[in-house]
Amino acid sequence: MDIKFIDTKALYLQIYEQFRREILEGVYTAGQRLPPIRKLASDLGVARNTVEAAYRQLVQEGFVSSRTGSGYTVEDLNLNEELFSKSVDESIGAYSAHERQLIMSMQKPVCTYTYDFNYGNLEEDAFPSEVWRKLTSDALHSFEAGGASRYDDHQGDYLLRLNLVNHLRKSRGVRCFPEQVIIQAGTPAAIQSVMQLFDPAIDTVAMEEPGYQGARLAFEQCRFKITPCPIFHGSSLFIRSLARSGARLCFVTPSNQFPTGAILPMQARLQLLEWARVNEAYILEDDYCHEFRYSAHPVPSLQSLDTHHRVIYMGTFSTTFSPALRMSYVILPPELLGQWKEHFQLAHSSVPWFTQVVMRRFIEQGHWEKLVRRALMRNKQKYETLIAALQTYLGDKIALTENGAGLHVLVQTKDGRSQEELVELAGEQSVGVYETNRYWISSHPLKANHILVGFSSIKKADIEPGVQALKRAWFGE
Amino acid sequence: MDIKFIDTKALYLQIYEQFRREILEGVYTAGQRLPPIRKLASDLGVARNTVEAAYRQLVQEGFVSSRTGSGYTVEDLNLNEELFSKSVDESIGAYSAHERQLIMSMQKPVCTYTYDFNYGNLEEDAFPSEVWRKLTSDALHSFEAGGASRYDDHQGDYLLRLNLVNHLRKSRGVRCFPEQVIIQAGTPAAIQSVMQLFDPAIDTVAMEEPGYQGARLAFEQCRFKITPCPIFHGSSLFIRSLARSGARLCFVTPSNQFPTGAILPMQARLQLLEWARVNEAYILEDDYCHEFRYSAHPVPSLQSLDTHHRVIYMGTFSTTFSPALRMSYVILPPELLGQWKEHFQLAHSSVPWFTQVVMRRFIEQGHWEKLVRRALMRNKQKYETLIAALQTYLGDKIALTENGAGLHVLVQTKDGRSQEELVELAGEQSVGVYETNRYWISSHPLKANHILVGFSSIKKADIEPGVQALKRAWFGE
Repeated sequence: MDIKFIDTKALYLQIYEQFRREILEGVYTAGQRLPPIRKLASDLGVARNTVEAAYRQLVQEGFVSSRTGSGYTVEDLNLNEELFSKSVDESIGAYSAHERQLIMSMQKPVCTYTYDFNYGNLEEDAFPSEVWRKLTSDALHSFEAGGASRYDDHQGDYLLRLNLVNHLRKSRGVRCFPEQVIIQAGTPAAIQSVMQLFDPAIDTVAMEEPGYQGARLAFEQCRFKITPCPIFHGSSLFIRSLARSGARLCFVTPSNQFPTGAILPMQARLQLLEWARVNEAYILEDDYCHEFRYSAHPVPSLQSLDTHHRVIYMGTFSTTFSPALRMSYVILPPELLGQWKEHFQLAHSSVPWFTQVVMRRFIEQGHWEKLVRRALMRNKQKYETLIAALQTYLGDKIALTENGAGLHVLVQTKDGRSQEELVELAGEQSVGVYETNRYWISSHPLKANHILVGFSSIKKADIEPGVQALKRAWFGE
Repeated sequence: MDIKFIDTKALYLQIYEQFRREILEGVYTAGQRLPPIRKLASDLGVARNTVEAAYRQLVQEGFVSSRTGSGYTVEDLNLNEELFSKSVDESIGAYSAHERQLIMSMQKPVCTYTYDFNYGNLEEDAFPSEVWRKLTSDALHSFEAGGASRYDDHQGDYLLRLNLVNHLRKSRGVRCFPEQVIIQAGTPAAIQSVMQLFDPAIDTVAMEEPGYQGARLAFEQCRFKITPCPIFHGSSLFIRSLARSGARLCFVTPSNQFPTGAILPMQARLQLLEWARVNEAYILEDDYCHEFRYSAHPVPSLQSLDTHHRVIYMGTFSTTFSPALRMSYVILPPELLGQWKEHFQLAHSSVPWFTQVVMRRFIEQGHWEKLVRRALMRNKQKYETLIAALQTYLGDKIALTENGAGLHVLVQTKDGRSQEELVELAGEQSVGVYETNRYWISSHPLKANHILVGFSSIKKADIEPGVQALKRAWFGE
């Protein structure tokens, strides 16, 4: 392989693109091995990490498979290569060289680190494949398989909603009927749907500052004005700031504030509910990660305290089960439910029948509770390993923010280096840690210089060497 | 069973709700039979159709199964009935009687007719369950199963996009790269995503009048102003009206106008493309149903003629494969693609990994082409049966609008009765036909009084008796 590297583009991405092109054009064929990482790295004069990252990307996109002991092998794509090359050629005719460059240059780079402390993805083997396979099979052979040929109830499968209501009543104290539940394709989609019941020309949204940027993007895409309310320096400042905001809706993560990990105290909860009652406003409670509390019992939901029906409750299957399922749920209070039904009366659910009925069976048959228990144990061990490693290797050099819950911690170095610099240094040692700047709306003078260190996807065994690599990256050997 | 019927609510819905309550409360238990239709109808003093509709609703929602010869049997819901009744009781405490009524009264009624000429759903056995089951199993056992634990590329699975590009090039002449394809959770979701690239404060949308109401709703939810351009009286009026609209985007269904079935003539296609070029506007081509043309070859897509990259191409798996899959795709021209990537850089795909990789395998292994061929043959037979039955039984009493394509025809009676009246009369004979009023934005004086008669979900054997029942409903024995 021979590559003319371009300066402005990540090296691993250029290697990956060259391989992708050659596989699609048939230069590499099914079953063929890619060059060993060590050899290619030395041929190209790049770091082994760089080649490894390129190979991982190829694996992730399904071009190449990786099996222990036999290296990286090109997959059989079952494509008619001749047809494909023809397609590319014909397409080229339809686009100028400039346009073609425009299209190709924008492939989103995916970061692949040896030690990836990201927040959001889960471990490779976290998904209960065998049970899911069996339940899919059951559903497709059951009397209700006709559901695969129909547009669904726009709120989603009734019995799935019923199961959710039971589960959330027991685990979160949520009080509602299945008729109030709406199954949605992920949290951003859920927010966009709910925001149809508000008017961006009149209503504004208050958000925790810092806060979940996925929610912020969803509000912005619905063209709502957002008022950030600082949560970082305690809940009384937050409540005072909310009171001045004039907002019609307040987005909060009271069980585990994202990203600070703080729990909203009871007094602030009651003040928040009172604010909503007095102002005829609503609270959007995102209970995204309530399962993972390692040192105490989970806090009940805000919805369970809500006697005036001002809370919209939201949850997701992404953090516990699978982010690839794209399934979440919203529970609407009675008044909003009426508006929602009127607004969406001609709409269909945007969540596949398949995932809904299989998930329902998964919960019905007790797999859900087992999975949550297992995930809690697994994450607790990882959490303890991470805290111990950070204290052992970085103890006196960093300040740690954590709350015995969730799937990440926050780390500050004491030397005033910027987030950008720290993330870049870590990346050079193939350690993925993440900036928290994106969670802030304003460039607040009090903004803390936190780095997010997540442990949802990293394997337990990789945590200690990952923290050691982080130490090398930030503070040298 | 004893029911106090309320006057303002469909009878079948009241029967259905009573059974649902009693099943959930354990009055009816798993395995128990519901009363025979004939008997219950006579006990309650209602028509047999009414009881049948209630039972069907229970089957659709999974409370009851129906097997030939053994009637309607209560399903084992695997729920802890005691827990559930407790949950209901506890929830009741949280809601006043008025609120409870508000929540319960809004359950969306589902129409269930003996002869349902709806447009959209497919036949119960249309879905290739066995192959889907096998491919799901393959995907979950493959080296790429780790995809189930990750957030996906925000444009969707790369190899699925590659397969789509090949398929659309061959069947529709669409010219593009996989990099331009975005997998979406259905057409309305796709439109909402694309409309993020336009500004409702400045840009207006032009739509065919009459036109697809699902698209209209999506534009309205994004708060765009819509200018209806009449398509009913030929394409030159449409083009003139578009030219005056000042629109920045024009939504069209050129291969099979919905709901009139008209094909946009070549001259109008070129005028449309020229309009977009001159006005720096875009065309949103919804190629939703190109597979089903019974008397001629399909017309190539508008995108295939687009040398200036002003066409956004959209398609769906709903009409051929399954509306319950919730999967569609958008192909963006280069300039919009750049904007989309910038706008959605932090977003995730809202289509599950499962459905994407299984669908990719389905296409790769040749099942897709086979399924489309089979569906075409099946629909052609149903189309011919429907046309023949309408001519035999209603020939001189109606005017028929159809174009040898699609999954519905339009019918007008010659006696000036309203759509509402005709649909209601049909419903009384348990025949489902549908109003077309909803496809019009303006109350245009030239609006035609069409009734939609679809054949996507009705069985071929039911078409002739269905048309006979329609004759009885509209014109007596």
